[in-house]
Amino acid sequence: MISIVLVGIETAGNVGSIARVMKNFGLSELVLVDPKCKPESKEAWDRAAHARDVLKKVIVTDFSYLKKYDYLIGTTAKLGTDYNIPRIPMTPAELASKLSEVDKKAKIAILFGRESSGLLNEEIQKCDFTVTIPTSKIYPTLNVSHAVAVVLYELFKEELTPNVKERYAPISGREKEVALEKVDNILNKMHFATPEKRETQKRLWKRMIGKAMLTRREAFALLGFLRKLE
Amino acid sequence: MISIVLVGIETAGNVGSIARVMKNFGLSELVLVDPKCKPESKEAWDRAAHARDVLKKVIVTDFSYLKKYDYLIGTTAKLGTDYNIPRIPMTPAELASKLSEVDKKAKIAILFGRESSGLLNEEIQKCDFTVTIPTSKIYPTLNVSHAVAVVLYELFKEELTPNVKERYAPISGREKEVALEKVDNILNKMHFATPEKRETQKRLWKRMIGKAMLTRREAFALLGFLRKLE
Repeated sequence: MISIVLVGIETAGNVGSIARVMKNFGLSELVLVDPKCKPESKEAWDRAAHARDVLKKVIVTDFSYLKKYDYLIGTTAKLGTDYNIPRIPMTPAELASKLSEVDKKAKIAILFGRESSGLLNEEIQKCDFTVTIPTSKIYPTLNVSHAVAVVLYELFKEELTPNVKERYAPISGREKEVALEKVDNILNKMHFATPEKRETQKRLWKRMIGKAMLTRREAFALLGFLRKLE
Repeated sequence: MISIVLVGIETAGNVGSIARVMKNFGLSELVLVDPKCKPESKEAWDRAAHARDVLKKVIVTDFSYLKKYDYLIGTTAKLGTDYNIPRIPMTPAELASKLSEVDKKAKIAILFGRESSGLLNEEIQKCDFTVTIPTSKIYPTLNVSHAVAVVLYELFKEELTPNVKERYAPISGREKEVALEKVDNILNKMHFATPEKRETQKRLWKRMIGKAMLTRREAFALLGFLRKLE
């Protein structure tokens, strides 16, 4: 189970925004450690949109509460030298692969710091490890709710991708073959200056159908077109 | 070159927030098609933080302006049936792999729709294809600035990961060997009930050092510890 912990959060709007993105990715436990703003304010409420249930159950507490978690994962935009071992970060993609090895029942807290100054060194020292989102050197610091969105997206994308894909059956290998046979038949009936030019066309169609990653529906539409040509 | 196009955006705060996250990932061309809010308002300004340069250069226009792009990519949280071909979406990860094949000089616009209702069907019809972020079925619709953050993160993570990693040299194969030789020496000097138990220990250390993905600095610290034990 993954919980989001905001340490010293300063802006109520960000709390609401984070409640929303947590629900977008299927999470519900939001913990505020020593917040500097009011999670019950109108701004938080508005930004939470349809995730007010997450906001209602928010836990307001102090750092000692975090002892209940099996893993504390810090996030930081400030990269230390490699002498500062706790500040040596993983990327979100590395975190996703790490967490896929961890027991689903483990209690995992991901900590995000203050808008103005992030997590303090002593807070990072208490984490098992840290995560940094790869960004431009010119302006590396994301808004905190964007950082939550990116980390949760990366952690849940594999699990949630079927929600996008389930209604679109991909073209089967057999359907691809049928389409290519039709293309070959048509090309065989057409006139080309040299046989090589015909082969080039055949290769083009094979590559194009392969690269387009058609769904079954799109493949049917294409077969309809080819049948008409034939 | 990738530009972000907001179609009918309703909230100035989101415009500012999107300017910021664009700069975080190294982008600078922000286009507003028929905006319903004022990009020059204080809220946009505040949320842009250190990305006011992006906000200053914002292009306010209508849909016909988008003809100048080579590819239009729509984003949507509404999944159509697979009869509605333009609404069959890719995931951001699929988009990243597609765009890696496209010429860097191609002008690519990624379109994000209204906060209230997304992109209209006729707008999606004008796109080359659509992208959807995998989310929970219970609350699939991300805040628009979160959607921009997630898509840009996915598109640029490979290019920007060296910014995180460059200062942390990973342990070399040779250093890993040295560490494991030291562990073996120590284990060989220790007493175990059976030789199998010693082998189990050796395997444990090999796995642990492998899975921890140590940086060179961490490996040196571990070698120091092992030298003391020895």
